[in-house]
Amino acid sequence: MTVNEELREENSVDEAKLLDSLEKNDIKAFREEYLSLHPYDRAIFYENVNTSHRKTMYFYLSPKELAEIFETSEIDESEYKQFLQEMDTTYAADMISYMFVDNAVDVLKELDKLHIASYLTLMNKDSAAQIKALLHYEEYTAGSIMTTEYVSIPQNSTVRSAMTILRNEAPAAETIYYIFVVDEDNHLTGVVSLRDLIITDEDTLIQSIMNDRVVSVFVSDDQEDVARTTQDYNLLAVPVVDFQHHMLGIITVDDILDVIDEEASDDYSKLAAVSNMDSFDKTSLSAAKKRIPWLLILLVLGMLTANLIDLFTDTISQVALLAAFIPLIAGTAGNSGTQALAVAVRGIATRDIEDESKFKLLLREAGTGLITGIVCAVFVVGLIFVWKHEFIIALLVGAAILVSIFVATISGSFIPLFMHKMKIDPAVASGPFITTLNDLISIIIYLGLATTFLSSL
Amino acid sequence: MTVNEELREENSVDEAKLLDSLEKNDIKAFREEYLSLHPYDRAIFYENVNTSHRKTMYFYLSPKELAEIFETSEIDESEYKQFLQEMDTTYAADMISYMFVDNAVDVLKELDKLHIASYLTLMNKDSAAQIKALLHYEEYTAGSIMTTEYVSIPQNSTVRSAMTILRNEAPAAETIYYIFVVDEDNHLTGVVSLRDLIITDEDTLIQSIMNDRVVSVFVSDDQEDVARTTQDYNLLAVPVVDFQHHMLGIITVDDILDVIDEEASDDYSKLAAVSNMDSFDKTSLSAAKKRIPWLLILLVLGMLTANLIDLFTDTISQVALLAAFIPLIAGTAGNSGTQALAVAVRGIATRDIEDESKFKLLLREAGTGLITGIVCAVFVVGLIFVWKHEFIIALLVGAAILVSIFVATISGSFIPLFMHKMKIDPAVASGPFITTLNDLISIIIYLGLATTFLSSL
Repeated sequence: MTVNEELREENSVDEAKLLDSLEKNDIKAFREEYLSLHPYDRAIFYENVNTSHRKTMYFYLSPKELAEIFETSEIDESEYKQFLQEMDTTYAADMISYMFVDNAVDVLKELDKLHIASYLTLMNKDSAAQIKALLHYEEYTAGSIMTTEYVSIPQNSTVRSAMTILRNEAPAAETIYYIFVVDEDNHLTGVVSLRDLIITDEDTLIQSIMNDRVVSVFVSDDQEDVARTTQDYNLLAVPVVDFQHHMLGIITVDDILDVIDEEASDDYSKLAAVSNMDSFDKTSLSAAKKRIPWLLILLVLGMLTANLIDLFTDTISQVALLAAFIPLIAGTAGNSGTQALAVAVRGIATRDIEDESKFKLLLREAGTGLITGIVCAVFVVGLIFVWKHEFIIALLVGAAILVSIFVATISGSFIPLFMHKMKIDPAVASGPFITTLNDLISIIIYLGLATTFLSSL
Repeated sequence: MTVNEELREENSVDEAKLLDSLEKNDIKAFREEYLSLHPYDRAIFYENVNTSHRKTMYFYLSPKELAEIFETSEIDESEYKQFLQEMDTTYAADMISYMFVDNAVDVLKELDKLHIASYLTLMNKDSAAQIKALLHYEEYTAGSIMTTEYVSIPQNSTVRSAMTILRNEAPAAETIYYIFVVDEDNHLTGVVSLRDLIITDEDTLIQSIMNDRVVSVFVSDDQEDVARTTQDYNLLAVPVVDFQHHMLGIITVDDILDVIDEEASDDYSKLAAVSNMDSFDKTSLSAAKKRIPWLLILLVLGMLTANLIDLFTDTISQVALLAAFIPLIAGTAGNSGTQALAVAVRGIATRDIEDESKFKLLLREAGTGLITGIVCAVFVVGLIFVWKHEFIIALLVGAAILVSIFVATISGSFIPLFMHKMKIDPAVASGPFITTLNDLISIIIYLGLATTFLSSL
């Protein structure tokens, strides 16, 4: 154990002690220790104990206390259903109503319609109405991740009255560090930070200190764009408005962190051709289920390549050495295509690409492909010549590598840009399709050239 | 233009107007319009105009006003040097001293030692000392991204005195939403949020409302771990301490967002075998420079595969159809290996993997590999049999696919876990090395089997 780990140990959770108090039915000891932990650590404990321990915990903790655990990102979406079923139905409904609305919606979305309806019926009307209003927003939009628990004030308030409103709403609001200013029709007209409020004289009018160039997002905006805006403008929360600029809700930075993580995982998993890595698999079968569809698609696409090579069997049986370089050429085309694609996908994701013209971009990629292709071709010709002393074959492989890198680089950047234009997520083009396309092109070039020059081989 | 875009337009920056006032030397009009923009929008304008316009801007804006622009994440690290050179040296030094220390350090790190020294000499002593203290922390550690501009109070203060300290320090502190409580030796003993302060009676002692189980990170911690902690515990800022728990600085959530983005780009670019995609390339040559090293390494590794196939030329010249399936088999092995690797790399990054035993994990991956291998093998045998009516070759390809998927899946998850254990970033194992390994293994199995059963083909 390093010094580092030892020091951490002090802060860590005494699981044995907690389990012991659960088993001894010592409710007082359990609550004292457990409630002193950070909700995140409480969630880890709650998640790791067995069902019967959890059932005891439902008697030891109030629905409100349990809601705090469910607020953390530690509890996996796939587990919500099981955990709720362990609870008494009214207890579960109570707990959900104590959660921040956006999180409550996340929990309910994992359930079927019948269960959602029964929980909503058991809740107090106010919570149920708030949740219902958020439930119908489409996934991955600003609406689906926003909460309605924000603090807003009329523009003719003073700093003093704003502070009073803040103090009253602090327990229920998700953030009180930004206060949103609205007119009588609930149009968003400005924003004031708590920082500004506490350094300003109490009699000052809000109107005179508010920022009226407030950055906002539309309720239908993609969550990735919302994340980018929040990050660009360094916001702790971003207001969500409708087309008429009515204030609908806010999205706080902790939810933005989750979105960024989710989108990065998503791009990454598509590049690796695994579907949906959101949740970590607990069994071989569930992991295999996510990977097999992609592999089967890739196998069918691979058969196209096999079919193509099969057309050249005559050439190959005459010069079998040709076959040795097929994976090298196809692999290099695939690699350079993936590089170009990754740069384009990240560029689109980080909006770097929007700043410049598409045509200039493609021209630059063509240049990159040409430079890369020439360098690699010269390198490989030298390598094969030194190794095999086969000058003609070396030239053939070199030519194939040059052309394939060039084509692969252009297609690798053109295809995602085109898909982005067509409003398709460019990450889905990753790996498989571009690679197959590049395989086919490079093999046609290589074996086609070889067949043409067969007499010289 | 959609309704959406039209509404956005209202908020957008009137570049023409700004340029016009710059050209007409209308300092008043320029300042009025420009300073009403969000710093992020100011940065975009500043970055996009030409050098002579920027030089005019240095006369129109105070060093303090320019510092706000340099605080945004919009200005690319690679541009700092050029922009500073455009300015008068004292003006530049002044500007740097007005920046938050962590951002000032980011700017200076892009310069050579001589320039850093001269700027530090020109600055006021206080700023220079703060910057010097942060300059020596290793890259990618908590120390390298923290700032020393936080608010701390003694534990025996009252809420009233805490609010007074806050009001005084608000203009200079990076966040005032968390106030850190320290003892007389500057040990971190607790944290209070501004939210707690404003709802508590003014005569209350800080000690009685502070949270003494404060989550902190060590100055030497990896920035990725810091990001994970901030996200898990839903913090707006995390305190940084040394081994004796002395408070050294804080890291705010906006810097955490940048870290998460950077690390995601990093993992992604390694999977795609492109080095360092942090900055978007402006020329073909700089893009090519980042991609060529990887392609050359991959070419050398690909020669190993070619060499291996070359050993089997006798077999191939007798049954040339065998060559047609080489890319298919090698590709499938590569794909299933990449899938396993991606799941492992993401699992390590999101810490999901730490929760369970490595042995169980490998066992599960072996199971996944076996299931996946069998399904794909059966599929491909059927496919080839239907297409070519070559039962023996179909069986051969099927057997090779089964074994290669199995081996590739295990190595794809074992290698990153092993590297993580050895404290090497598992993402560097991505793509190239695992793919080459899997290529070699799958080809030996396939062509080895083919040679053994040659008489039956």
